[in-house]
Amino acid sequence: MAEIRPATPADVPQILAFVRELAEFEREPDAVVASEEMLHHALFAEHSCEAVMAEVGGNPVGFALFFHNFSTWEGRKGLYLEDLYVTPDARGQGVGTQLLEHLARLALERDCGRFEWSVLDWNQRAIDVYRKIGAVGMDEWRIQRVSGDALRKLAGR
Amino acid sequence: MAEIRPATPADVPQILAFVRELAEFEREPDAVVASEEMLHHALFAEHSCEAVMAEVGGNPVGFALFFHNFSTWEGRKGLYLEDLYVTPDARGQGVGTQLLEHLARLALERDCGRFEWSVLDWNQRAIDVYRKIGAVGMDEWRIQRVSGDALRKLAGR
Repeated sequence: MAEIRPATPADVPQILAFVRELAEFEREPDAVVASEEMLHHALFAEHSCEAVMAEVGGNPVGFALFFHNFSTWEGRKGLYLEDLYVTPDARGQGVGTQLLEHLARLALERDCGRFEWSVLDWNQRAIDVYRKIGAVGMDEWRIQRVSGDALRKLAGR
Repeated sequence: MAEIRPATPADVPQILAFVRELAEFEREPDAVVASEEMLHHALFAEHSCEAVMAEVGGNPVGFALFFHNFSTWEGRKGLYLEDLYVTPDARGQGVGTQLLEHLARLALERDCGRFEWSVLDWNQRAIDVYRKIGAVGMDEWRIQRVSGDALRKLAGR
């Protein structure tokens, strides 16, 4: 069993390292432009997200980073899991499920109606785990994104 | 041209009526359990979301409801549009695009890296508009959701 605890400022370098490993796994190794300063600001100054660390024997083996979204249908906030990562050596021991269970408890404590996240459609191993724990795929929905030059153009700048 | 302005507490009944109309369009008419009290709390007490109204000649013709998400790759928050709605009579006049442009400006003002939302995969009319304004479909991603009994079970309750 891993120990799950809230992240502290001292965890930021490890979190950024995990974010980069996850981006490699997701086949987007160059997509991470975040710096330690930016993550520190977001987690511990702006509070635009939160993170928990998973440790085994005092060593970090994974993390989860999340924030609150909102459902107009439910009329209340939800918990959205942005990143979930477990190191290759620690996989298959239930650490990911432990992180998900921890966040489910947090969601209920905070009166959230939903606990949500996204998965790549080719990551069948993860999808199998998500089905086992009762997650439903919102398969009709497609995320749309405007960023960079397109965002500036849409804003008329 | 519509006038876009921030929602006030007096707009809550109209927002809830629009949320219900949108749920009917999305083929989920019974999915809205939100009440006026809940939306008022979220928008003006808890501040878990924000809303803007679109008006023509002083009459409400649409709205947008949004909140901030966070990208670990970007290292900063984004703007996530949860609901965008324009009444049937007011469609085809660019009100939806005006709302999107307004939110794009807000996203830049708030130093957001991305402006995102989701669309049903059968809503081709909307998808065509989104492509024209520079939105990219994140088509490999599938949203996963745990709620209700499954959420309590995952939390061990």
